Amino acid sequence: MTSDDDLTRGADLGLLSPMGSAWEDTGDLAVLRAMLDAEVALIRARATLGLAPPEAAAAVERAALVELFDLPDLIRRSRSGGNPVIPLVEDLRAAVAVGEHASHVHRGATSQDILDSALMLVSHRALGPVLTDLRTLATMFAGLAAEHRDTPMAARTLTQQAVPTTFGLKAAGWRKLTLDAHARAHAVRLALPGQLGGPAGTLEEPHGLAVAARFCAALGLAEPVLPWHVLRTPVADLANALAFAAGALGKFAADVLVLSRTEIGELSEGVGGGSSSMPHKHNPVRATMIAAAARQVPALAAVLYGSLAAEDERPAGAWHAEWQPLRTALRLVAGAARDAVELAGDLRVHAERMHANLTVHGGTGAAGALVDRALKEE
Amino acid sequence: MTSDDDLTRGADLGLLSPMGSAWEDTGDLAVLRAMLDAEVALIRARATLGLAPPEAAAAVERAALVELFDLPDLIRRSRSGGNPVIPLVEDLRAAVAVGEHASHVHRGATSQDILDSALMLVSHRALGPVLTDLRTLATMFAGLAAEHRDTPMAARTLTQQAVPTTFGLKAAGWRKLTLDAHARAHAVRLALPGQLGGPAGTLEEPHGLAVAARFCAALGLAEPVLPWHVLRTPVADLANALAFAAGALGKFAADVLVLSRTEIGELSEGVGGGSSSMPHKHNPVRATMIAAAARQVPALAAVLYGSLAAEDERPAGAWHAEWQPLRTALRLVAGAARDAVELAGDLRVHAERMHANLTVHGGTGAAGALVDRALKEE
Amino acid sequence: MTSDDDLTRGADLGLLSPMGSAWEDTGDLAVLRAMLDAEVALIRARATLGLAPPEAAAAVERAALVELFDLPDLIRRSRSGGNPVIPLVEDLRAAVAVGEHASHVHRGATSQDILDSALMLVSHRALGPVLTDLRTLATMFAGLAAEHRDTPMAARTLTQQAVPTTFGLKAAGWRKLTLDAHARAHAVRLALPGQLGGPAGTLEEPHGLAVAARFCAALGLAEPVLPWHVLRTPVADLANALAFAAGALGKFAADVLVLSRTEIGELSEGVGGGSSSMPHKHNPVRATMIAAAARQVPALAAVLYGSLAAEDERPAGAWHAEWQPLRTALRLVAGAARDAVELAGDLRVHAERMHANLTVHGGTGAAGALVDRALKEE
Amino acid sequence: MTSDDDLTRGADLGLLSPMGSAWEDTGDLAVLRAMLDAEVALIRARATLGLAPPEAAAAVERAALVELFDLPDLIRRSRSGGNPVIPLVEDLRAAVAVGEHASHVHRGATSQDILDSALMLVSHRALGPVLTDLRTLATMFAGLAAEHRDTPMAARTLTQQAVPTTFGLKAAGWRKLTLDAHARAHAVRLALPGQLGGPAGTLEEPHGLAVAARFCAALGLAEPVLPWHVLRTPVADLANALAFAAGALGKFAADVLVLSRTEIGELSEGVGGGSSSMPHKHNPVRATMIAAAARQVPALAAVLYGSLAAEDERPAGAWHAEWQPLRTALRLVAGAARDAVELAGDLRVHAERMHANLTVHGGTGAAGALVDRALKEE
Repeated sequence: MTSDDDLTRGADLGLLSPMGSAWEDTGDLAVLRAMLDAEVALIRARATLGLAPPEAAAAVERAALVELFDLPDLIRRSRSGGNPVIPLVEDLRAAVAVGEHASHVHRGATSQDILDSALMLVSHRALGPVLTDLRTLATMFAGLAAEHRDTPMAARTLTQQAVPTTFGLKAAGWRKLTLDAHARAHAVRLALPGQLGGPAGTLEEPHGLAVAARFCAALGLAEPVLPWHVLRTPVADLANALAFAAGALGKFAADVLVLSRTEIGELSEGVGGGSSSMPHKHNPVRATMIAAAARQVPALAAVLYGSLAAEDERPAGAWHAEWQPLRTALRLVAGAARDAVELAGDLRVHAERMHANLTVHGGTGAAGALVDRALKEE
Repeated sequence: MTSDDDLTRGADLGLLSPMGSAWEDTGDLAVLRAMLDAEVALIRARATLGLAPPEAAAAVERAALVELFDLPDLIRRSRSGGNPVIPLVEDLRAAVAVGEHASHVHRGATSQDILDSALMLVSHRALGPVLTDLRTLATMFAGLAAEHRDTPMAARTLTQQAVPTTFGLKAAGWRKLTLDAHARAHAVRLALPGQLGGPAGTLEEPHGLAVAARFCAALGLAEPVLPWHVLRTPVADLANALAFAAGALGKFAADVLVLSRTEIGELSEGVGGGSSSMPHKHNPVRATMIAAAARQVPALAAVLYGSLAAEDERPAGAWHAEWQPLRTALRLVAGAARDAVELAGDLRVHAERMHANLTVHGGTGAAGALVDRALKEE
Repeated sequence: MTSDDDLTRGADLGLLSPMGSAWEDTGDLAVLRAMLDAEVALIRARATLGLAPPEAAAAVERAALVELFDLPDLIRRSRSGGNPVIPLVEDLRAAVAVGEHASHVHRGATSQDILDSALMLVSHRALGPVLTDLRTLATMFAGLAAEHRDTPMAARTLTQQAVPTTFGLKAAGWRKLTLDAHARAHAVRLALPGQLGGPAGTLEEPHGLAVAARFCAALGLAEPVLPWHVLRTPVADLANALAFAAGALGKFAADVLVLSRTEIGELSEGVGGGSSSMPHKHNPVRATMIAAAARQVPALAAVLYGSLAAEDERPAGAWHAEWQPLRTALRLVAGAARDAVELAGDLRVHAERMHANLTVHGGTGAAGALVDRALKEE
Repeated sequence: MTSDDDLTRGADLGLLSPMGSAWEDTGDLAVLRAMLDAEVALIRARATLGLAPPEAAAAVERAALVELFDLPDLIRRSRSGGNPVIPLVEDLRAAVAVGEHASHVHRGATSQDILDSALMLVSHRALGPVLTDLRTLATMFAGLAAEHRDTPMAARTLTQQAVPTTFGLKAAGWRKLTLDAHARAHAVRLALPGQLGGPAGTLEEPHGLAVAARFCAALGLAEPVLPWHVLRTPVADLANALAFAAGALGKFAADVLVLSRTEIGELSEGVGGGSSSMPHKHNPVRATMIAAAARQVPALAAVLYGSLAAEDERPAGAWHAEWQPLRTALRLVAGAARDAVELAGDLRVHAERMHANLTVHGGTGAAGALVDRALKEE
C-alpha cells in the first residue's frame, strides 16, 4: 500500500463490521497475494512441462511479492478494464524485467483464470479457521449438552412457555446444526477448484489439460472436469456453505438473545458489552454480532446463486457481481464463527433461573435419550 | 374443495406462473393429502407398538381421504391458530366419529410435526419428476455435445466475440451443470426427514423414539437424529438444491436467449411462442420462462436460509415464513425443469450460422478433448 | 373455473398462507377480470375516437364477463406463448362472434399492455383495503398512545432493560411508522399508470396518444408520459410501498411478540391462538403471521427491483419474473394489515406488569412531550 | 490510520469493486469524520442552550479531528461493545483532556444517536455527487433523444426483432428512468434526519427537544418528529432510492450490452476495456460494471427493509445489520452513476448499423411525438 491517496483514505478497515472477523484473510492484500500465487503456479506448471524456461518461472516467483506492488495504483488502473488482473499482469511483467521472461507471464491464461483461482484460494484459506472454529464450537456444545443433560427448562413455542425441555437438549441441537454447518463447509472447501481455461475456456492444444492439472495441484486446489468460467458450481456451493453456517450460528445467537433477556436471565454472556450511555448495561454483544451476520449472508448468497445463470463464455455482469459479495460473506461467517466460540466459551448458564422460570410442569420426555443419541454422532 | 366461496374465487391456479409446472404435486390438495398421510403414519406407528388400538388406526386411515375434507373451510379456520393442522385434527377426529378412536388421532404429535412432515413429503414427491427431468436433460445435452463436438462457433465474452470454441463444449457445460444440479437435488431428497418431536421436541418416554422411527419409515422419509423443529437443515438443504437447479437451468436458458437473437440466429426454439400483436414473431418462450424462474428462486432461498436463525423451540414467524416460499420454489424449479426438457428436445442448432457468424479466427484448442473428458463423467 | 382437471386439483387457495389475506382481490379470477377490463377499456377508447364501431365496443363489453371464460383452459394454453393474454384474446374474439367486431378486439395493443394494465388494476384494488387498514391502525395506535402517554415501562435495548420509557411513546412510534407506510402506499397507488404502447412501445400514429389517454382514464389509472414496458418505475414503486408496509407492520408485531412472552407479559393478544397439542397455550398468532409476512416481502421486493434492469423493448425473463412476486407481496401485505388491525383491536395492555417488571429507575424524560408532538402529525 | 497491523493489512480499498466508486465519501475515515461531526454538533447544541460551557464545545471541536484518531485501534476496541462509538467517546474524552470538559462529551446521547447521525451524514454527502451524475446523465440522454428522434432501429422483444422503433425513443426512456431515480434520491436526501434520543429514545427533560432541533440543524439534517432508533423509515427510504437508482442505471447498461454485441454493433463504448489475453477485444466494460452493481443492490436493500421489523427500543442485530449493506449500496450506486456518465459521454451510436440490421419493416408510429412529450418533462 504505497500510494497515500484517495483510495487509501477511502479504505474500509472494518469500522462498520465489528464482527471480530478474519479481515487479514480476506482483505485486498490477501486477494492480491492469491492472484500472484496463481500467476506463479501457472508459469511453474508450464515450466514443468517444458513450455517455459525454468529461469522465467524463477524470475516470476521472485517478482511476485505482494510488497512490491502498489495496491492503490493497481485498483485505480483496474477500472479501465473492469478487473484487477490486467494491470497486475502489466506490473508483474515490468517487475520481471527481462523481456524474454516477461513474455511468459500469464501465458495461456485469461484474467478470469487468475481471479477465479485467487478467489478460490482466498476462500480456501478463509474457511480453514472457520472449520476450526465450528469444530471447537461443536465440542463446547457437546460439553454443555452432557453437563446439562437433565437440567430442566421451559420449552418456548411462539414466545410462550410450552412444556419442559432440558438445556442439554437445546445445546445438543446447537451442536447438531454446527456439525451440519461444518460438514457442508468442509465438503465445499475440499472441492474448491482451480480455474484455467484460457480466453474461451477451451484450453490450448496439446498441453492445456496437463498445464491445468499441474496448475491446480500447485495451488492445492481441485482439478475441475471443465473450466468453470460460466459453470459456477463452486461459487454456488460456497453460497450454500456460508449461508448455512451463518444461519446455524444465528440459531445459537437467537437462543442466547432470548434467554439472556433481563426478565428471563437463564443465560448470560460472561463479559458482555457496555454502553456509551448506560454504565449498568451488560449487553449480549457477541450474540448480537452473530445475529447481524445471519441477517446479511442469505441476501449475499442470493446474489451468488443469481450469477449461475451466466450467458456466453463470460457474462457481462454476473461474474463481476460475485466478487465482493463472496468476500463479504466469507468475512461475516468467519467473524460470526469466531464470535460464537468466544460466546460459547464465556456463556453463563443459570440453571436455578431456568428452574424458577418454569411455569409449566411435567416431565422432559425422552430429552435425555435424545441428547445421548445426538452426542454419539460425529 | 366443496365450499364455493371467497377462497375458491380467490384461488391461484397458475395464471401468473405459466411455467408448465407440476402444480398438482404442490397444490393445496397435495399438502392436505400429505398432512393426512402423516396423521395416518403416526397412528399406525403407535398401533404397531401397542400404543393405539389397531381399530383406531384403521378408522383413521379410512377417514383420512382428501375428498372428505372441506379445504376452503379448513383454510378459513386455520387462521385463528395460525396453521392448518389444528382444524385438520378437529375434522379428522370428527370423521373418525367413534369417541374412543378419535382420541388417538394426533396423539404424541404437535402441529409442526404434521406440517413439517407433510412439506417433506410434498418436497419428496415434487422432486421425483424434477430428478427425472434433470437426468433426461443431461442425456439430451450429452447427445448435443457428442454431435457437435467439433462444431466451431464464436466464444463470446463480455458480449464480444473472443476466440472460437465449439458448440459441443457449450453443451457439455450445460450437461455438467445439470448433473451438478441432479446430484445436489438427489442427495437432498434422500435425506429428507420425517418430523416427530411432540410439543417441545422432547418426544415421549418410553416409546417416543420407537414411534418416531416407525413414523418416518412409514412415510418413506429419513429418521433424523433429533427433532428438527428449530434445526432447519432439511429446509436449508432444499433451498440450496432448488436455487442451484434454477440457476443451472437458467444458464442453459441464458445461452439460448443470446444465441437465438435475430441477429445471431445460431439456435432456435423449434416451436417457440407467438405474439398477440405480431404474428411473425417466433419467441424463445421456454427459455424465457426458465429465465424468469431463475430470477425468483434465489430470493425465495434467501428467505429459507434466513429461517435457520430460529429462536426457542418453535419460532414466532421464521417457521411460518418457510411454507409458501418452499412451495413456490418447488413449483418454479419443477416448471423450469419440464420446460428445459421441452426446450432441449426441440432445439434447432444452426451450425452454418455459427460458422458464418465467426469473425474471430484460430483453432478451438482442447475443446474436443474437454468434451470427451466431460462426457465420461456420470 | 369450469374444467375440473389437474389445474383445479393443483390450486393454491391459501393453505400455506394463513394470513387472513385478501385473496379475492388477488386471485386468478381477479387478474382475469382485470385483463378483461383492460380489453374493454381499449376498445371503448378506440370507439370514442371513431377508431372502432360502437357496436363492436358494446359486443366486447357483453362478452368480457369473467364467468364466460374457462380459466384452467386459459392457463393451459398460456404456456405455449408464455403469457395469458394470447389465449384470452382468442377466446374473447370467439365470444364476440361477429367476425367484423372480433377483428377490433385487442387492436393497437400488445400482450404486455393488457397484462401490465391488469396488474396495475389489481394492485390498485388490493391496495384500497390496505390503505383503509393502515389508517384504522394509525387511529388505534393514536388511542393507545394517548391513553398510555404516561404509562411507564422498561425500554429494552439489545434485549436488556435500559432506562424507563412509556408505552405511549412506543405506540406513538408504531403510529408514525404506520403513517409512513400509508403515505408511501397512498402515493404509489395514486400514480399507478395504465399501459398502452403497442408491440414496440411506439403507439400508433396519429391517434395512439389519444387512445392511450382515454384508455387510462377509463381504467381509473394514471396516464404515463411514455409506455413503460421497460421503464418499470411503477413496479419498483410498488416494491417499495409493499416492503415498507410489511416492515412497518413487522415492527409492531416484533414488539408484541417480545412483550407477550410468558416471562414479560406486558401485552397479550386478547384471543390468541391455540395449539393442537397444548390446550393451555395462548399464542400471539396474529403477531406471528405478521412477522412471517415481514420476512418474505423484502425478498420479493428484491426480485422486483432486479427487474428494473430490463433489456430491449421487452425483456426475456425480467418482466415475467415480476408477476407472481408482485401478487404474492400484495397478498402478504393485505393479510398482514388485516391481521394488524385485528391484533391492535384486541390487544391487552398490562400496565401493572409493565410497572412490576421495571428493574431500572429514573424518569421518562421527554416521552410525554414526544407523544404529544407525534400525535399532532397527520 | 496510524497503526500498521492486521487491520491495515486486511483493508478493503476496492480491489474487488472496480466500479469507479466514490470510496472517499464512504470509507471508514468518512464515517469516523461524520461521527466526530455528530459529537461536535451535540455539544455545540447543548452549549447554545447553556447546557454546556462554550469552552467545552470549543475544546471538543479542536479535538475532533479525524487525523488525531487511531482508526485501527478504534476498530479493534469497538468489538467488545459491538459498535465504534464507545471507544470513540473514550478517545474524544481523552483528547479533550481537561476533566471538566471531557465530562460534557457525548452527554445526552447514546451510541446509536451518533452512529445513525453519522450514517445519515455519510449518505447525504455520498448522494450529492450521485444526484449531480444523475442530472448530467439525464441531460446527455436528452441530447441523444433529440438527436436521434427519428433514427429508426429494430425494437426487440423477447430477443427477437419486433417492429421498428427509434433510438431517440430508447434514449428518452433512459432519461425518464434516470429522472425518476433522481427524484427519489433527491427527496430521500432532503428528508435524511439527524438522530438524538438518548439511551431509550425519550430525550431529556426539559431541554431534550430543543437540543435535538439544534443538533439536527447543525448537521444540516432534518429534524424528525420522534427519535427513530427503531422507526427505520430513513434507512428503508435509502434502500428504495438506491435500489431504484441501481436498477435505472442497470436498464441503460442492459441495453448497451445488447446493442454492442459483435453481431448487432449498434452502439459501442468509445474507449471500452481491453483483455489480458485478447488484445483485439473491445469490451463494454462500463456497462458491465453498472450491470454488476445492479445485481447487488436489490439484495442489500432487502436486508435494509428486513431491519424495519426491529424489536424493542434497540434491536439485537437488525440495527447492526444495516451498517455495512447501507454503505456498500451507496458505493455501488455512486460508482454506477459515475460509470454511467462516462459511458454515456463516450457512447458511439451507429445509426447506419441500426438501419442495416432492421429485418422488420413499417413506420415508427408515434415514437417522435412520444420523444417530444417526454423531453418536456423535468
